[in-house]
Amino acid sequence: MNHLRPLPAAGTVAEQAVYRQAVADGLGSFLDLKRRELLAAAPDAAALVDAIADLTEGGKRLRALLAYWGWRGAGGSEAAPEAVRAGVALELFQAAALIHDDIIDRSDTRRGKPSVHRQFESLHRSRGWSLAADRYGLAAALLTGDLCLSLSEEAFSSIDAGAGSGSEARRIFNQMRTEVMAGQYLDVLEEAAGPSRPAGTAVERALQILRFKSAKYSTVHPLCLGGALAGGSRQLLQSYADFALPLGEAFQIRDDVLGVFGDPAATGKPAGDDLREGKRTVLIGHTLNNCSKAERRYLEEHLGSPLIEDSTIEELRALIIRSGALAAAERMIADLTSAAYGHLEQLAVSPEVSGALRTLADAAVRRNS
Amino acid sequence: MNHLRPLPAAGTVAEQAVYRQAVADGLGSFLDLKRRELLAAAPDAAALVDAIADLTEGGKRLRALLAYWGWRGAGGSEAAPEAVRAGVALELFQAAALIHDDIIDRSDTRRGKPSVHRQFESLHRSRGWSLAADRYGLAAALLTGDLCLSLSEEAFSSIDAGAGSGSEARRIFNQMRTEVMAGQYLDVLEEAAGPSRPAGTAVERALQILRFKSAKYSTVHPLCLGGALAGGSRQLLQSYADFALPLGEAFQIRDDVLGVFGDPAATGKPAGDDLREGKRTVLIGHTLNNCSKAERRYLEEHLGSPLIEDSTIEELRALIIRSGALAAAERMIADLTSAAYGHLEQLAVSPEVSGALRTLADAAVRRNS
Repeated sequence: MNHLRPLPAAGTVAEQAVYRQAVADGLGSFLDLKRRELLAAAPDAAALVDAIADLTEGGKRLRALLAYWGWRGAGGSEAAPEAVRAGVALELFQAAALIHDDIIDRSDTRRGKPSVHRQFESLHRSRGWSLAADRYGLAAALLTGDLCLSLSEEAFSSIDAGAGSGSEARRIFNQMRTEVMAGQYLDVLEEAAGPSRPAGTAVERALQILRFKSAKYSTVHPLCLGGALAGGSRQLLQSYADFALPLGEAFQIRDDVLGVFGDPAATGKPAGDDLREGKRTVLIGHTLNNCSKAERRYLEEHLGSPLIEDSTIEELRALIIRSGALAAAERMIADLTSAAYGHLEQLAVSPEVSGALRTLADAAVRRNS
Repeated sequence: MNHLRPLPAAGTVAEQAVYRQAVADGLGSFLDLKRRELLAAAPDAAALVDAIADLTEGGKRLRALLAYWGWRGAGGSEAAPEAVRAGVALELFQAAALIHDDIIDRSDTRRGKPSVHRQFESLHRSRGWSLAADRYGLAAALLTGDLCLSLSEEAFSSIDAGAGSGSEARRIFNQMRTEVMAGQYLDVLEEAAGPSRPAGTAVERALQILRFKSAKYSTVHPLCLGGALAGGSRQLLQSYADFALPLGEAFQIRDDVLGVFGDPAATGKPAGDDLREGKRTVLIGHTLNNCSKAERRYLEEHLGSPLIEDSTIEELRALIIRSGALAAAERMIADLTSAAYGHLEQLAVSPEVSGALRTLADAAVRRNS
């Protein structure tokens, strides 16, 4: 029962499905072409493209869909090739980031399958090859991510109109890449340097990291990129950003909550994975702020330990709840979501676009995976 | 005494020096801008740009210089901004490839300094940070390489004329990236799968790897890219490739010889580094083809062993010489160089451009570092 919100119009739902299919088809045919090129020249190297194709079959396509409604809201035409190419470029960029992120975090799974470095490691083992399987897995996944990053750019630069040198869309695409990489570095740095920095500013630092590595990247940049491609005014793009930034922050805090409390069957990640990786999220920041010295020592001792026991994960979860950190994170999600919806109502776009954005926003912050 | 070859004209030398300086200045100001952007938003992340700036101060700039003479040979004007931007993009791409290559090969040094992952590892140790220093080094270097790859593209896409969507220069730049990554994967794969593949085709496989990961990338693509940017004809670009492919092959075989026999003081790499890394080069292929079964076992046992002793390196070197592999590699370098010079004489370019290309070719195949 959801009488308070208008349901998205049937036409909008159908239009989004057409775009989503066009992005999937675009990804498929672009990667097929690359696979054929490599098969002709160096067949063994086609394995890199296979890994990318496999990974990009999954995912929520949030960034591509935001780019699409940003494009439509700025007057771009239905299912236009420029918007499809932008979606393909964004999905490939996201895949590249995930492949390298999984190397950094030593994640075993992604989207419910083995992560790319684990896939190559298994291949090495099953063939009984020489030297260390884990080094081979790392090298192959690193190169797959590099290729995927390059292909993302190749897709982006194939957009004819509006994405050339000096354009606003190009500027956004460049800024997005730099900020994501900077944000991921801040994240890695915080894992290392965080314990020796003041607990009192841990939430603030976690917010800066999530803004760079996730919030702007997942929502602001895709939406504005779509808008810029369609020639949206500076004012429209600013109003897109006003709506999308709190949405992206809420999206990432939801992700952080799922990283500790999510159901592995839904997230495709092991339970409490963020604790094992030592991610110092807003959730951890709030916990550090509100727990006893002994609890803080316990948390610092186990956070980022690859061999953390399931029972310890249970105790850490209980601590996070007891400290009020989970409630604080849920409150932040609620406040940010409410701010985003407030800005959404101010957007100078058609009711169809506004409705589609509301549906995406709902999915982003209310999801369980 | 070098009476047989014409010395490059003084004007050409001066012109190349102007271009080289313009590329250094272009790199410096582009990276300064990026550093300032990051310092304003996320100061800690400026460390990534610092690492890139430090690495790109060194190097022979072979790819940028080839792009320049390719540009000039096709009628491009002296020290034009397009050629400088192409040089900046190529140098940044090379830096990105080196940063990730050093992670894959676990190299401690690059251009006479600690490799990027080792620099970040040392930073971690000196600050006494939490979690493992080597994991931090790997993560930070991986992200630095990703940023460098993105900045390379940003520089390339800022070339106004001739490098846009659908242009020949864009096609070459895209192909270069895909081929380098594919070639690096073939290299990693050969280290793992090579010992179980027939020794009789080891030289052939090594040649395919070097063509992809190095020869085309180091010479063919930069030269043709410069030519394409200046609007060179298909025929001119083909003649560039005819000259540059054997040159690039000779260049890489010289690199392989230096990787085993080079002087650490000149190469900036430890003695016999390629043996430690397990690189299965043309030199190794020839050795495998021409040694006894017992020698082959000895070679396979020690190749790619990170803890290989200096005395073992000496014995492996002696084996490579005794098998005739070093002489065979030198013969290949001589034949390929001679083929390249033959094609150089056929190039429809001015004597100045031809002279500059000859000087670069000499440096590429006769170097000791």
